Amino acid sequence: MQTTRLEAFSDAVLAIIITIMVLELHVPERHDLAALWHDSGLSLLTYVLSFVYLGIYWNNHHHLFHLTERVTGGVLWANLHLLFWLSLYPFTTLWMAESDLARVPTTVYGINLLLAALAYVLLQSRIFAAEGPEHALRTALGNDVKGKVSPVVYLLGILFAARSGEEARWATALAIGAFVLVAIIWVIPDRRIERAVRDAI
Amino acid sequence: MQTTRLEAFSDAVLAIIITIMVLELHVPERHDLAALWHDSGLSLLTYVLSFVYLGIYWNNHHHLFHLTERVTGGVLWANLHLLFWLSLYPFTTLWMAESDLARVPTTVYGINLLLAALAYVLLQSRIFAAEGPEHALRTALGNDVKGKVSPVVYLLGILFAARSGEEARWATALAIGAFVLVAIIWVIPDRRIERAVRDAI
Amino acid sequence: MQTTRLEAFSDAVLAIIITIMVLELHVPERHDLAALWHDSGLSLLTYVLSFVYLGIYWNNHHHLFHLTERVTGGVLWANLHLLFWLSLYPFTTLWMAESDLARVPTTVYGINLLLAALAYVLLQSRIFAAEGPEHALRTALGNDVKGKVSPVVYLLGILFAARSGEEARWATALAIGAFVLVAIIWVIPDRRIERAVRDAI
Amino acid sequence: MQTTRLEAFSDAVLAIIITIMVLELHVPERHDLAALWHDSGLSLLTYVLSFVYLGIYWNNHHHLFHLTERVTGGVLWANLHLLFWLSLYPFTTLWMAESDLARVPTTVYGINLLLAALAYVLLQSRIFAAEGPEHALRTALGNDVKGKVSPVVYLLGILFAARSGEEARWATALAIGAFVLVAIIWVIPDRRIERAVRDAI
Repeated sequence: MQTTRLEAFSDAVLAIIITIMVLELHVPERHDLAALWHDSGLSLLTYVLSFVYLGIYWNNHHHLFHLTERVTGGVLWANLHLLFWLSLYPFTTLWMAESDLARVPTTVYGINLLLAALAYVLLQSRIFAAEGPEHALRTALGNDVKGKVSPVVYLLGILFAARSGEEARWATALAIGAFVLVAIIWVIPDRRIERAVRDAI
Repeated sequence: MQTTRLEAFSDAVLAIIITIMVLELHVPERHDLAALWHDSGLSLLTYVLSFVYLGIYWNNHHHLFHLTERVTGGVLWANLHLLFWLSLYPFTTLWMAESDLARVPTTVYGINLLLAALAYVLLQSRIFAAEGPEHALRTALGNDVKGKVSPVVYLLGILFAARSGEEARWATALAIGAFVLVAIIWVIPDRRIERAVRDAI
Repeated sequence: MQTTRLEAFSDAVLAIIITIMVLELHVPERHDLAALWHDSGLSLLTYVLSFVYLGIYWNNHHHLFHLTERVTGGVLWANLHLLFWLSLYPFTTLWMAESDLARVPTTVYGINLLLAALAYVLLQSRIFAAEGPEHALRTALGNDVKGKVSPVVYLLGILFAARSGEEARWATALAIGAFVLVAIIWVIPDRRIERAVRDAI
Repeated sequence: MQTTRLEAFSDAVLAIIITIMVLELHVPERHDLAALWHDSGLSLLTYVLSFVYLGIYWNNHHHLFHLTERVTGGVLWANLHLLFWLSLYPFTTLWMAESDLARVPTTVYGINLLLAALAYVLLQSRIFAAEGPEHALRTALGNDVKGKVSPVVYLLGILFAARSGEEARWATALAIGAFVLVAIIWVIPDRRIERAVRDAI
């Protein structure tokens, strides 16, 4: 099986997830900047965070399948499994934003991020299993520091979120900080992969 | 006519259906795990079920058209007919979840599943009619046990759902069990088709 | 310019329009068949009608661009113009359904149908202008009876709708009948075009 | 990396943004033309404006990547950055329409338009940087009068919007006029680019 249609379908799902979050942004009742900040400020900021995350997944997905030739039934389902966790982003993002970064919703958001990351790792390993050890991305990834560090930082974020609360806003800050940190790690271009992609052409 | 654009359009519709169900998930009012479970637990579980169903249809659709060369006007409409029943999934899923698996909504959900399955069978037969008896998938399917068993299990599920109610939760459980069973049958990879696809390349 | 990306974009827009109408379907409050019929029956029926219309447009659009090689800036805008009127279908469909087929909303729905049809004619003529007189579809269409009859039937429907009201339900019936009639005319396969498409390969 | 998937993803996001704005259009409560005008008139007009803007971006994006061969990681992110600002259109359009063109929402809408325009300029410059000085579009754009005039007109519109209010409806009119003017400038076909595209084939 070729990857064309899997890529097209994933593109469509990711495009929809990234966009429908806007539908969840409630327009402020009043018409001044204070209302925009008060009613929608946090929603907009968390929207940015989830937008960046989905952008990262799209980028990585793009690279991963660019270097992949064959897909098996297992890869199709591993891909759908990843899309499932990503499809929950609008839900968990909204809950976290509407709760004013309350303890449980922020923890749930972090767990969602972690599960999507693990789903991505699973997808990658299924592809490597199907393609054999000479997969171009495998050698490009090398030690895959990013891939190993991210779950740890997510876990730290989840632990801080689980510790947060009205009287412990510092823990909320650290939790969000951890989630932002992972995003920054991934937005910084990955020269290894870019080189591998360039070489593969 | 080539199948490219039909596949692209179906991908987009399926991607949207699979994703907009998330928009129907109402975020809990309160911010604790009990609220998440109470307000959204059932919605999330039924979302998973419908997500898996749509994933199965996408997979099968993918295989079906991968092995198909020509499409006629009849195939185009049989495809739209299938997409129509699938497009009702968000509606019937939501009604069933919001009703707490009440008798009528669960029955209607089952009928929706059954009608989509029949629409798929119709689409398949229209393609076989257009392509002639040597269609690669036709030989691959052989007796097509899955395709014959599914409607029966759906029907059983519908009958249990129609029998269910406040005082007969066992029937609800059997109905949902039947719907889950069909999903499991299909998620298990179909080696016949994978082989046919591999041979066709 | 090639037509690939114009087709992909139009597919996506049409797929979204055809699917988001489901989001407008409000799930019944109660959980019996009477509630389903009373709360959602009309919405479901009008959804079917608009779904079929959008399916027809997708089919025709598919054929039209299948036989088209070059697109100019004018064609791009004529295409967006068509998509604009089609994008209003969810809005006018919902208003008509929620109003219980009241006079003004039904008339507005008919006008929307008519404007989309005229936008399609405009798009077609822009393509013929860009491609020259030997456009394969031009000869295939011949007298284009369907294309000429449809606006007349739409217009009749609009006139009946404008005449309808609480005390003139027969006019409502005739209006809806006219709109259904156009859909039927188009769903019936068009052998001329299918032949032209087949010959063009 | 090839541009195919970037184009497909952008198409999908743009198609969704352009279409979901319809979901924000609230259907009038009553069923007469006065209600349609009163409840939805302004929403419909602002929808047209944003629809045209998104159509322009899609057109320009289409041309830009048609003439582009290579994409780097930087281009991917510059593209996502553009899509981010465009994805806020439904939100800012709705706020402006619901506020009856109040001062702050209209200003925010203008700022959103300006930021999207700057994101487009940034994307273009990243592509030129990646492709080298002989990029076909670069020579086609020449002085790029449109690209230089637009931000100025946007800025004027923002200034007028910031000056507008209950007692200064003329400023609102001038602000909207400026936003409409930019749209008109871009809808008028750009013969330079069309020629470059034609030559590049």
